[in-house]
Amino acid sequence: MLTNDQLNQWDREHFLHASTHFAQHARGESATRIVTTADGVHIEDRDGNRFLDAFAGLYCVNVGYGRTEIAEAIAKQAHELAYYHSYVGHGTEASITLAHMVAERAPAHMNRVYFGLSGSDANETNVKLVWYYWNVKGRPEKRKIISRWRGYHGSGLVTGSLTGLTPFHAKFGLPMAEVVHTEAPYYFRRPRRDMSEAEFTAHCAAELEALIEREGADNIGAFIGEPILGTGGIVPPPAGYWEAIQPILKKHDILLIADEVVTGFGRLGTMMGSTHYGITPDIITIAKGLTSAYAPLSGSIVSDGVFKVLEEGTDKFGPFGHGWTYSAHPIGAAAGVANLKLVDDLGLVQNSRETGAYFQNALRERLGSHRFVGDVRGEGLMAAVELQRDPDAGTDFDAADKTTAQVVGAMAKHGVIARAMPQGEIIGFAPPLCITPAEVDKVADVTAQALEDVTGAL
Amino acid sequence: MLTNDQLNQWDREHFLHASTHFAQHARGESATRIVTTADGVHIEDRDGNRFLDAFAGLYCVNVGYGRTEIAEAIAKQAHELAYYHSYVGHGTEASITLAHMVAERAPAHMNRVYFGLSGSDANETNVKLVWYYWNVKGRPEKRKIISRWRGYHGSGLVTGSLTGLTPFHAKFGLPMAEVVHTEAPYYFRRPRRDMSEAEFTAHCAAELEALIEREGADNIGAFIGEPILGTGGIVPPPAGYWEAIQPILKKHDILLIADEVVTGFGRLGTMMGSTHYGITPDIITIAKGLTSAYAPLSGSIVSDGVFKVLEEGTDKFGPFGHGWTYSAHPIGAAAGVANLKLVDDLGLVQNSRETGAYFQNALRERLGSHRFVGDVRGEGLMAAVELQRDPDAGTDFDAADKTTAQVVGAMAKHGVIARAMPQGEIIGFAPPLCITPAEVDKVADVTAQALEDVTGAL
Ligand SMILES: Cc1ncc(COP(=O)(O)O)c(C=O)c1O
Ligand SMILES: Cc1ncc(COP(=O)(O)O)c(C=O)c1O
Repeated sequence: MLTNDQLNQWDREHFLHASTHFAQHARGESATRIVTTADGVHIEDRDGNRFLDAFAGLYCVNVGYGRTEIAEAIAKQAHELAYYHSYVGHGTEASITLAHMVAERAPAHMNRVYFGLSGSDANETNVKLVWYYWNVKGRPEKRKIISRWRGYHGSGLVTGSLTGLTPFHAKFGLPMAEVVHTEAPYYFRRPRRDMSEAEFTAHCAAELEALIEREGADNIGAFIGEPILGTGGIVPPPAGYWEAIQPILKKHDILLIADEVVTGFGRLGTMMGSTHYGITPDIITIAKGLTSAYAPLSGSIVSDGVFKVLEEGTDKFGPFGHGWTYSAHPIGAAAGVANLKLVDDLGLVQNSRETGAYFQNALRERLGSHRFVGDVRGEGLMAAVELQRDPDAGTDFDAADKTTAQVVGAMAKHGVIARAMPQGEIIGFAPPLCITPAEVDKVADVTAQALEDVTGAL
Repeated sequence: MLTNDQLNQWDREHFLHASTHFAQHARGESATRIVTTADGVHIEDRDGNRFLDAFAGLYCVNVGYGRTEIAEAIAKQAHELAYYHSYVGHGTEASITLAHMVAERAPAHMNRVYFGLSGSDANETNVKLVWYYWNVKGRPEKRKIISRWRGYHGSGLVTGSLTGLTPFHAKFGLPMAEVVHTEAPYYFRRPRRDMSEAEFTAHCAAELEALIEREGADNIGAFIGEPILGTGGIVPPPAGYWEAIQPILKKHDILLIADEVVTGFGRLGTMMGSTHYGITPDIITIAKGLTSAYAPLSGSIVSDGVFKVLEEGTDKFGPFGHGWTYSAHPIGAAAGVANLKLVDDLGLVQNSRETGAYFQNALRERLGSHRFVGDVRGEGLMAAVELQRDPDAGTDFDAADKTTAQVVGAMAKHGVIARAMPQGEIIGFAPPLCITPAEVDKVADVTAQALEDVTGAL
């Protein structure tokens, strides 16, 4: 084992971490954490600290850490066949089996899946599918993609453009011209406080209609949305939202991509988030929960209707010119098969629903009336606590105070990891789906304690 | 174990393979192959067939198949810690060690690496780095990326645009406006047959100058190129190419991205292709050979000069808003560490140089004067045989005849896998770097035999 000093030096000198302040990291001014092992809902670092990870990595380790069943499936695959490609009809028992398992779990009208590596690359594939679809249909100008402000769909060039959050746009010259944004379905931040949920939903629908009018439905290929906003603040949609949005898209011949990277495979207490909210997508994006992050794997599930056009397209134009070297990677596929089986065997979708309801309650009880808490919200095992300087007056903390970062830092001192969401003062929670009521109690208690530590208010 | 029939049905009904004719696949009209195990340079399928894989998967399984050392490193990591994220300064012993090992192997002026999953996503990261770089420098309009026709840089939206091959553009509405293409450094396809290599190089340089003039250097952020064209036909550059190109880029303040997804870590008989050709890049893309495909992992290596601007940027604007959930995935990092160690321990860079030279020779001897062979070329363990109907007259086969696909099919019957490159009549070779002289002899022999089988000519 290398010494901590040696690792620390290499880390500072050579490693560009995701979403990190490169200069502070290189100068040794910011904290690092070298994670060594993990089990259930807990992780451990090299300095001997142990944390309850109430964000499951990046809401991805759904079955929990240290699952021997998945580690063994990975090891077995690594020994038998670590890699072969999936181009031109090639496959492995694992990748074919997983395609079948995904189709079983997807909505009934969706039966085919293309495997990638990350949620971002799956959304790249989706946009390619949309552009191809409209080309085959003879309407190549149907090309723009509508996304929502506060949506998160990846960190690439087009996918980072789909993402509707400032930190992913500023200084990169994003969003690109092919992406247009509409109102975030974020009732807590509605334009007028006296709007009812129903009025706000009508407002979102009207904004969407107006955008389509402005851009021209003939120029719009698809609409992408998470069933519930994730990285943009963990915000369930206002009542009636998806019922109001979908007919508008249908009317204007706009495909619907449901980005289920977070919600797929149990997070909301249902197998898929689309089912949860009565969404009928043309394409679904999956990643995270597909393998519980034990190995990188993502997917684009297409509806039978979309597939018909893909068939027509390849019959006319030949093979579909798209692929990543590691599409349907055997290690990821083996992890996926073992993981989805474990989700079933452990009853994790049900636990997400039941312990999720318990958790939402616990958070509301402990934190709902705290003087600096503006909103407590969530669904299943996703929840958020939004902080405000004065909830009654509706005034926010100064971003420069970094209040949420402080609270999350104080929580870590008490042994619980939550996430300071990237835009706004929002504490995010999305623990492994195997979490127990006693553990969510601890999370709620520690959150309350940390809020007191930082603000002095009980 | 599932029956072949069951797998076949699931495959046809649910699995969208990369670069595949979806309709024929679904209808059961095209071949499939379920690969079960592999060792050294050989793979085996479920029907008991065994092949010498002279394309190393997709030129990625550099150390060869079935390496226990890597499988065990993956298994160990899977049991200890399959996943934790690398955001905001988080790391693992494997990811930090690998960052150090990559820096050791990169050119001396390049010391920092960002880890992704695929070659495509690494190039996405690279374009984000370029756009950020010029934003920090106060020149946000330096945004267009110059790529070459016949370059291959990925299959996404922007990365598929960088790729200069028709099958990846047509019907997808690519390339996007941010990408402009210049002449392919493809001497065999020079504009006039009487051009010398030196004249052709001067022509490529003049074309580049003219493009920069047309677009305006103020609008161009970077130039991307593979040291040797890969998927576009496995074409070494004409003599003096990189020496001619680099001063032009420098003069116009255009960053240079060397895409070493194929050439990195030994393929050309040198650790990096940049060193091989005297290229001094600002950014290097790596993937494939980084892990020999045992697990998905890619990287963007930045020069000290680029890093200085990243430091300045984060000091001014805060954390760099970029990341994939699976950036620096522990399983990929562990595979990378074990793989790079194996490349050293087995002397594979040297074997690539030596057996590569032997292979180039063997191909030239066996095939150089065949009446349907227009060109035999390559470098290290990358080689191509380009077919023509009449090499003397310079006339090509009709694409509809699918001559190369037939030859490659005939080779498979003789137990050797080569690749029909996606554009043109080009048989591609890029075997594992551990291949022996006896094995490359077999590859050359089988190629000659298959060519005879298909064309009837000796
Ligand atoms: C809804 C959603 N889509 C896409 C992504 C991108 O996934 P990845 O980070 O694997 O690229 C994320 C990541 O958090 C996500 O939450
Ligand atoms: C030079 C080059 N760059 C980028 C890529 C894209 O890599 P990936 O398929 O892993 O996305 C490839 C793949 O063949 C490549 O050859």
